[in-house]
Amino acid sequence: MKRWARESVRKRGGCGFVPTLGALHKGHKSLIRKARRENSRVVVSVFVNPYQFRKKQYLAYPRDLKADAAVARAEGADVLFAPGCRRMYPNGFESFVDMPDMFKRLRRQKLGWHYRAVLVVVMKLFGIVRPDRAYFGLKDPHQLALIEMMVKEFNMPVKVRPCPTVRERDGLAYSSRNALLAPDERKTAAVIYRALKFARDETLATGAGNWRKTTSRMKAMVNSGQKAAVEHIELVDARSLLPPGKECREILVYVAARIGRQRLTDNIRFRIKQQT
Amino acid sequence: MKRWARESVRKRGGCGFVPTLGALHKGHKSLIRKARRENSRVVVSVFVNPYQFRKKQYLAYPRDLKADAAVARAEGADVLFAPGCRRMYPNGFESFVDMPDMFKRLRRQKLGWHYRAVLVVVMKLFGIVRPDRAYFGLKDPHQLALIEMMVKEFNMPVKVRPCPTVRERDGLAYSSRNALLAPDERKTAAVIYRALKFARDETLATGAGNWRKTTSRMKAMVNSGQKAAVEHIELVDARSLLPPGKECREILVYVAARIGRQRLTDNIRFRIKQQT
Repeated sequence: MKRWARESVRKRGGCGFVPTLGALHKGHKSLIRKARRENSRVVVSVFVNPYQFRKKQYLAYPRDLKADAAVARAEGADVLFAPGCRRMYPNGFESFVDMPDMFKRLRRQKLGWHYRAVLVVVMKLFGIVRPDRAYFGLKDPHQLALIEMMVKEFNMPVKVRPCPTVRERDGLAYSSRNALLAPDERKTAAVIYRALKFARDETLATGAGNWRKTTSRMKAMVNSGQKAAVEHIELVDARSLLPPGKECREILVYVAARIGRQRLTDNIRFRIKQQT
Repeated sequence: MKRWARESVRKRGGCGFVPTLGALHKGHKSLIRKARRENSRVVVSVFVNPYQFRKKQYLAYPRDLKADAAVARAEGADVLFAPGCRRMYPNGFESFVDMPDMFKRLRRQKLGWHYRAVLVVVMKLFGIVRPDRAYFGLKDPHQLALIEMMVKEFNMPVKVRPCPTVRERDGLAYSSRNALLAPDERKTAAVIYRALKFARDETLATGAGNWRKTTSRMKAMVNSGQKAAVEHIELVDARSLLPPGKECREILVYVAARIGRQRLTDNIRFRIKQQT
């Protein structure tokens, strides 16, 4: 991969990169297609990074490299990069990217360790693949904000291209974890996107200042679904990830919920009129 | 610089990079010459990074960009990159590279904050310049060990090339700070390298297990110099930066000392027979 990258940077046209955890679905396909349109070379990586999971989740994560290779090829990727874990972390790792303020905000979600590991692996993959553009779904808005911050602050020679979340017909965001839902859980899961749309409509009608009430009604809405339990909801300024203040122009509503044993996340973003 | 770098990576022959704090002296010249021999393009950067200094040191640091440009040109550099501070840090920074274990070892020197800032600026400069090879003096062995660790762990597409310390006739390592010494201080300063050679001879004669005695005799030796005061001495395994154990094959002896108002550092490295 490193040799290919070294040769590749000498060519015109640019290299697009879609880093994934594998189990490629429609969401990934839309990323690969976008990369295909904007670059002359496209690399898709499949790497289930052990450090960003709890052990059980890591072992349960769906893996099917043959199917992934078929999807990547069908969508026009030039390279599928699927390094082994020992190759990526021969001696574990001791170098982190730290963002004390951003991580403090994320700690409310207790997921700082997760995003820290994500940043390390994204940094490593960028170093190996040397892309001109990297494609990430808007589905994980915190991950996206952290990666954008890292790329900006470290002047990394790559453009981060966010891509809209792809949804199923009932609104459920595509995710590899959807395949792990039982049929009744799958049906329940649509409540997440309904609650997000409710939050958007409510906020546009009653104002962002009303966020406590809005999120508590969302929570009740999701929890009313069978086997559904909200883990975390936030309704924040999309840029700062802090509660919406007077300057706020764009809202991010984010939900993480357990449906059965799976943890699903989704979000919605929308502009609001500035408060006066 | 970024545009140049983008065009440059498409060319054959490679780009060599010599990051400096300016005030270019013989040590820097030897780095630029080595870069010149090994690459078809050479970039020298001059940036006095405010975050890696205490404020007084930062203000007192010698600056002469015209002279630096002349030196860089004379040694055959293609580009002198001298970004302004606001350009490099428009909003300060909040992203760090953290290496908990390595920094804990450095904290004995109370310089963790310094090296943290060095890693951030090296990371940024690598992102902007996109070199194939980067040249660092062996004069700061801790900095070198940290940068090598960062590049290795993040799979950064750059080769770190360490270069031997250049010395004056009396053995004093070239440093921009030498110019700030009064004549009598300059004379005193040679004691540092004498003490390092003493430590080498003593260790080769009596063994690395004798390191406490050796360093305390070195300390007395340096402190006997006029206006000279040892700040820090270590005699360690060159690889792990820990006290030499039975496995140790290469020793690093490192001294930081005040001569008058200046803080000078120097080190020596040598192989030893494995202890039995």
